[in-house]
Amino acid sequence: MTRPYTLPPIGSNPATTPNVTTPGSFANRPDIGGPLSFSSPDTPGMPAPSDKTAWDFLPDGWQTTTDDSKAQAWPCLGFKVTQFQQADGSTRHVLHPEHFEASTQLEHARLGVVTPQMARVAEREGHLTAEQVRDEVAVGRMVIPANKTHLGYKLDPMAIGRASKTKINANMGASPVSSGTDEEVEKLKWAERWGADTVMDLSTGGNLDECRAALCRNSTTPIGTVPIYSMIIGRKLEDLDESAVLETVRHQAEQGVDYFTIHAGLLREHLKLVKNRLIGLVSRGGSILAKWMLMDPTGRRENLMNTAWEDICDIMREHDVTFSIGDGCRPGGLADATDELQLAELVEIGKLTERAWRKGVQVMVEGPGHVPFDQIEYNMKLQRTLCHGAPFYVLGPLVTDIFPGYDHITSCIGATSAAYHGASMLCYVTPKEHLGLPKKDDVKQGCIAYKIAAHAADVALGIPNSRNRDDELTQARAALNWQKHFDLSFDPDTARAYHDEDLDVDTDFCAMCGHDWCSVRISKEIQDWASGKADGYERGKPVKSDALTAEQQAILKQRGYLKPEEIHKLASKTKKVVDADEDGKASCHSDYVDADEAKKLQEEKLVQVDVRPALGLRKEDSVI
Amino acid sequence: MTRPYTLPPIGSNPATTPNVTTPGSFANRPDIGGPLSFSSPDTPGMPAPSDKTAWDFLPDGWQTTTDDSKAQAWPCLGFKVTQFQQADGSTRHVLHPEHFEASTQLEHARLGVVTPQMARVAEREGHLTAEQVRDEVAVGRMVIPANKTHLGYKLDPMAIGRASKTKINANMGASPVSSGTDEEVEKLKWAERWGADTVMDLSTGGNLDECRAALCRNSTTPIGTVPIYSMIIGRKLEDLDESAVLETVRHQAEQGVDYFTIHAGLLREHLKLVKNRLIGLVSRGGSILAKWMLMDPTGRRENLMNTAWEDICDIMREHDVTFSIGDGCRPGGLADATDELQLAELVEIGKLTERAWRKGVQVMVEGPGHVPFDQIEYNMKLQRTLCHGAPFYVLGPLVTDIFPGYDHITSCIGATSAAYHGASMLCYVTPKEHLGLPKKDDVKQGCIAYKIAAHAADVALGIPNSRNRDDELTQARAALNWQKHFDLSFDPDTARAYHDEDLDVDTDFCAMCGHDWCSVRISKEIQDWASGKADGYERGKPVKSDALTAEQQAILKQRGYLKPEEIHKLASKTKKVVDADEDGKASCHSDYVDADEAKKLQEEKLVQVDVRPALGLRKEDSVI
Repeated sequence: MTRPYTLPPIGSNPATTPNVTTPGSFANRPDIGGPLSFSSPDTPGMPAPSDKTAWDFLPDGWQTTTDDSKAQAWPCLGFKVTQFQQADGSTRHVLHPEHFEASTQLEHARLGVVTPQMARVAEREGHLTAEQVRDEVAVGRMVIPANKTHLGYKLDPMAIGRASKTKINANMGASPVSSGTDEEVEKLKWAERWGADTVMDLSTGGNLDECRAALCRNSTTPIGTVPIYSMIIGRKLEDLDESAVLETVRHQAEQGVDYFTIHAGLLREHLKLVKNRLIGLVSRGGSILAKWMLMDPTGRRENLMNTAWEDICDIMREHDVTFSIGDGCRPGGLADATDELQLAELVEIGKLTERAWRKGVQVMVEGPGHVPFDQIEYNMKLQRTLCHGAPFYVLGPLVTDIFPGYDHITSCIGATSAAYHGASMLCYVTPKEHLGLPKKDDVKQGCIAYKIAAHAADVALGIPNSRNRDDELTQARAALNWQKHFDLSFDPDTARAYHDEDLDVDTDFCAMCGHDWCSVRISKEIQDWASGKADGYERGKPVKSDALTAEQQAILKQRGYLKPEEIHKLASKTKKVVDADEDGKASCHSDYVDADEAKKLQEEKLVQVDVRPALGLRKEDSVI
Repeated sequence: MTRPYTLPPIGSNPATTPNVTTPGSFANRPDIGGPLSFSSPDTPGMPAPSDKTAWDFLPDGWQTTTDDSKAQAWPCLGFKVTQFQQADGSTRHVLHPEHFEASTQLEHARLGVVTPQMARVAEREGHLTAEQVRDEVAVGRMVIPANKTHLGYKLDPMAIGRASKTKINANMGASPVSSGTDEEVEKLKWAERWGADTVMDLSTGGNLDECRAALCRNSTTPIGTVPIYSMIIGRKLEDLDESAVLETVRHQAEQGVDYFTIHAGLLREHLKLVKNRLIGLVSRGGSILAKWMLMDPTGRRENLMNTAWEDICDIMREHDVTFSIGDGCRPGGLADATDELQLAELVEIGKLTERAWRKGVQVMVEGPGHVPFDQIEYNMKLQRTLCHGAPFYVLGPLVTDIFPGYDHITSCIGATSAAYHGASMLCYVTPKEHLGLPKKDDVKQGCIAYKIAAHAADVALGIPNSRNRDDELTQARAALNWQKHFDLSFDPDTARAYHDEDLDVDTDFCAMCGHDWCSVRISKEIQDWASGKADGYERGKPVKSDALTAEQQAILKQRGYLKPEEIHKLASKTKKVVDADEDGKASCHSDYVDADEAKKLQEEKLVQVDVRPALGLRKEDSVI
């Protein structure tokens, strides 16, 4: 009765080709050209990629080519030619001043040098070679925010760019409530624990200087700041001048800050566009600089971050601080998204990118905020065009305005799409956004929502091996191997606690469907699928799960469904609690469940309609 | 210093055109052709829309045309022609048996009748006329799941389709833990409160029959079921036959169930493909029917839901039960997504759609599960092709497998993209997915994550007025009008509780940035934007917020950051608690905060670095 049917053709673009895969392997996706081709397909009408890269914005007098014959015609007085083989096999020739000494990762890359930081990045990314990292840095599509001072502390170099895995940033110190430096360092550790790849110190309270120094000294992740915040302390805004700007920038660069948000794209001529908005400027830096421009009695004052740009570059180059060019016109509501003001600023940011590259400074660019889902791709692709592929670091974006209290969710939806369509780093949003100061659990929830977004985008982009852990977890799920399932999950304590809330035995079903109705069990009986017996994924006998750890108890306590005595029971049900073994050895193994107890459990906890006869299950199932 | 720059062209497709809007109005988007044009643009290579609709699958002998001359040549013996004007102005001619009596919404639509249910749908959707609803039902792109019996109870008719707003479904009763009927009705009310548009009763425990009847009698939302669950109770699976199937289907149709999930697309010949998967079949219905096919001693038995399809249709037509054609091969992990098995079943589901339409029955189709972000559009567009635009009702999809405990988030990301690219209803996933039975708060979290997805997609698709509430909330935010902000938010109790956790005064800043650093305040000083003084959005004097309600107290208690006595203080701080006013009048108004108290608050709670001189703020700010 089945008529033959040929499925409609699908696109040849890797990102739209459904990938019928084998577990844990991308070997059958020859359509993915190589690790540097990760991008989403362009919906019709999207701005095309720029035909320029950072190689087109070299300092005066520099030249570069991959055409051997062309290099031979170069002038040589006071200049010399360095040449090296790029990862794609071509030879890069670079004409530069004879005695030039590279300071930044970008400058090293321009001279063909693989720095120890690039080597470390390649090690951490897995799918990239150190030479590929170098070449990506050289074209400006990747940055390694690594202040030389911070490298002397504990910084573990990482990269932000399209070819590397998507990164997430956690903001902290954003507290108007005075909090001590120790507390901020503790928050830093907490954010790092939940996967933050970089941390921004947005302190507006406490001892800003001491706190910043402590974060640089203690973090393994790059630290970003918004120097304008410090510039307006103890000074009248109208007194802010270029020397004050440079002084602050220099001081923070010396402290070890890895990247600076500088709102230099907002120009005086843009300010007239603010009135068309529903909610004006929501960027603190942007609003402060706008006010500074308008305080000028001459009425002609231009944003001093823009006019001082080259001088700022000089300081940042010396310490290798990376730019994160701030979006002072970030939309604060869907209605203001992709408006004339935002796009006008982005055009200027593109020019600042070119100017920074000419000074040898690494650049990333900040963007979104609140953007309807359909406009995200346009925003990403437009930035790609205007900023010639410089890494895009975006906040959210939130795809609706009406869910305060849930903005980690509204924004991680937008962030996934942003990362898929072009963003390289995602700035998290916590559930407290718009409402108050994030607490510890808000930081965790924000980090996790953004790890989801970043990981989902990496899988979608086909970054090699990024799906391996998903496939391993699926196999553990298929084998009904609960402990392995939880071990592979991002937050094992939460997964374990939720499971044990209903059923503290690891057996061949869970409390959602129960034994008789478990589709995985049933379909296993029909036909063992390829992975069903994969080595290392076998389920053992049903076991009582381990006693709950303190963290797991806290999770269940917060949920509030179990009574304290029930949680206590789960926390002390077995002798084999870690550190509580009779002979003093900690044990991670659980007790086997005997048949009587299992039957009792089935009756007590899982009173189902009995369909065992229908499914041909023995009355006494082999497992429970 | 600014060079002129023309932004790159953007697509003419409505959905990719950034919409520079004025508040609350789509009047300036003439590019949106009309309310029936909502669809995302196709990424290159996507399957094209089908050139057929339900008008191409009429019962034998029926004919239809919008060509007046063609209609005149029709035979008339025993047949008659009905003609009516469609919403697009054309005249539809329909040749049908002389004494035909319409039973379903689809059949009424085919005869040009606007039913009271269609009229009600138009009222609820706002942007659609009743005639447009009728025409969408007639082409099969919209369903109104409204069992005639349920209409006799409390059902408030709603529609699922591409032209209407995106809907969400909440599953319940999925409990293997026996729960009473009253408890299920309470869960129903809870899901309806949090915005569920339909509810599925997936009970596998308790008194299934009584529970289903109670849900039908008490719900204002359509109720869906999976009848196979009841069919295997008290019967050996191998004894399941067509008469048992029809008996159950008839019984549930008589009870008032509005839609049935029937897994008729999974064929015997598909089963060999299961072995290629990582996790086999994860659909309960699919796995049970697969097992039934394999139990056949002759080795040739075909899925009896498929062979009995027309007989099932007859019963469903009589009561106007809508099909939700089940996806027995829903992928249970990213690795299994968009695989040969899933697509083979979808091809068969397309044929079942055609067969149901020939019988006059309304059809929607079920899909996804776990699908990488980049494959979602393909899944949606392929269904549009194969099923000729029948509404797509999808679970999630989850875009990563490694976040158990957070699958409401992993899946609402996929759901947003699915709704944008073609899905009409989203089946929620709760945080307990894969781990256990959802509790009350899990149901709420699942509903809210899916309301976010549905709403974000509606805004992205440009459904008229769908963004109004977002814009209103943005205006309230711009005015720093906290109470209005919360009133407009989806979950006001949570927003209020989170705000008051830090600061129980509604003033012109929040505890995230504090007074001095509030960009909204600062940019308001620069330039009043258009909406800054919008009528009805003005902020009054700073006020102490109302005493916390019991619900708000519970939210803060669960978060666990405030001590019980602090929560108690917030709950009893003012005499004007609702119902506690001295003269017996409930009051929603708050106490004004006097200057002394405000100053104290600023000092106690918001010890910031003082940048008031820099910002030119008076030491004694006018507000606090």
